[in-house]
Amino acid sequence: MASPLLPPQPVIYLVEPFGGSIRRQNANIAHVFWDDAAVTRGDGIFETLLIHGGEPVNLDKHLQRFRRSAEALDLPDPGVDHWIKATREAVSDYYRERGGAAGEDAEAKCVWTMTRGRETTGVPTAWLTVRPVEASIIAQRAEGVKAVTAPRGYSIASGEGAAPWLAVGAKTLNYAASMAALRWARSQGVDDVIYVDHRDGRVLEATTSTVVIVRKDNKLRTPAPHADILPGTTQQALFDHASRHGWRCKAKDLYVDDIYGAESVWLVSSVRKAVRVTELNGRPLGAGADKEIPALVDAAVQAHRP
Amino acid sequence: MASPLLPPQPVIYLVEPFGGSIRRQNANIAHVFWDDAAVTRGDGIFETLLIHGGEPVNLDKHLQRFRRSAEALDLPDPGVDHWIKATREAVSDYYRERGGAAGEDAEAKCVWTMTRGRETTGVPTAWLTVRPVEASIIAQRAEGVKAVTAPRGYSIASGEGAAPWLAVGAKTLNYAASMAALRWARSQGVDDVIYVDHRDGRVLEATTSTVVIVRKDNKLRTPAPHADILPGTTQQALFDHASRHGWRCKAKDLYVDDIYGAESVWLVSSVRKAVRVTELNGRPLGAGADKEIPALVDAAVQAHRP
Repeated sequence: MASPLLPPQPVIYLVEPFGGSIRRQNANIAHVFWDDAAVTRGDGIFETLLIHGGEPVNLDKHLQRFRRSAEALDLPDPGVDHWIKATREAVSDYYRERGGAAGEDAEAKCVWTMTRGRETTGVPTAWLTVRPVEASIIAQRAEGVKAVTAPRGYSIASGEGAAPWLAVGAKTLNYAASMAALRWARSQGVDDVIYVDHRDGRVLEATTSTVVIVRKDNKLRTPAPHADILPGTTQQALFDHASRHGWRCKAKDLYVDDIYGAESVWLVSSVRKAVRVTELNGRPLGAGADKEIPALVDAAVQAHRP
Repeated sequence: MASPLLPPQPVIYLVEPFGGSIRRQNANIAHVFWDDAAVTRGDGIFETLLIHGGEPVNLDKHLQRFRRSAEALDLPDPGVDHWIKATREAVSDYYRERGGAAGEDAEAKCVWTMTRGRETTGVPTAWLTVRPVEASIIAQRAEGVKAVTAPRGYSIASGEGAAPWLAVGAKTLNYAASMAALRWARSQGVDDVIYVDHRDGRVLEATTSTVVIVRKDNKLRTPAPHADILPGTTQQALFDHASRHGWRCKAKDLYVDDIYGAESVWLVSSVRKAVRVTELNGRPLGAGADKEIPALVDAAVQAHRP
């Protein structure tokens, strides 16, 4: 039983690649070596899953994206079955060890990581962690966030400027720029940044989530796919589900005026679920459908429980 | 004495930030935790130094860039004295433990790393490693490399497209794209990629080194500074030194035709020193000054010994 005075330790499982063994790792002992590509180059992939009611939600979409990311980075296929098995064992340990602290509906956050591995072995390193959802995320779900727009500061080229090796659409460990953007946002008194392409004014995505807007007459919109936008697993589940329940959902180019004019604006991601943007660039945004969207996202990701 | 059958283990020293303790780390034991920013986000900085004749060379320029990188990433100042002390202790261990295998002139490679640290502590993690220079690098110095030009695949914006938080000119752990470019180069039967801006044809840099060309009448040229180009410590030392010995050195915009038309073309970096590009895009390049340039680089970096 964890002491309430200590930060809760995660449950960590090491996952041997290629369907090998799965074993619990003591969270107080380091397991990443000095020559791991994750450490020396930020060279690896990850997925963040929500655990709800003792189960990973939206599991199929995360598995698909994890495998796509590996392919884009020319990493071996991470496989499927042993990730599911390791996730279930870790989640089971997590709930058992937290005892009464976690009811059946309590949520947790699970992160899968696979790196290119140690320089000296060349075998991918892979593990997963299960731990509580951050209090700040739970607060954001209830209160929403303030955001500002800003250019991303770099752009991925397509056409003749595209690099043949570049991992477009992969969820890689190269996230330092997003973290810097978040620190900068906080220094400006807001919570997040929505990236906008400064050349044509297209809305891209937030630092670690997908932008979804609500329009009149039950319409949902998200920015059209692009090399600069990571396809969102939660947005996809939301659109799949909402389309079957009377919403008209489309991915198309969006501009800042579309955000200002929306009924409401949302940042969606696995653990965040749906967080409303209350203010953009100091301008208050609408709160339309502010009960329906979180309920839709909840239903959508749970519809994807295995 | 290391067995010749086992890959040599590096000497690792952990460096406590803010001038704290320095201690040897067993290379067979992992020291990076699951929640270190280097592992989860590729969020940290590094420098690679050449050790020559038992001393780190070009030390002042590496210290300067390490501190500049930290500042650009909003990391605490890594300081100076304890990095020098830790480097000297590690180098001394390295030569002692390798015994007769390393003569006074033998080279080694030293890497400094500082990350944003563990999520659960917020204190930067820092360490350095000393190990042999790779045999492939030594071969490249003797034989040169074949390269191809390619777009980098992304561009860092300046002016109105610039992000206020972006770490321009910092040597960060976000190197996965460079490693992907190198793997791609090998799949094409060459050794390296020289990035060219596809919009205006400017030559930028190679994946992990600076481009320097030799022109008639003792002229050295390197691409003019730009957000897309990391300032090279070895190129700077070379230009400082060569300028005092009758060479006219300038940083200016270079294009692919400047490379084809050069007396010779070089990739320079700390451990690589000077490696001649023998062929670009299948076209043989000149071999002018092919004895003088390596000698100049050697003299330049040793002139910077403390």
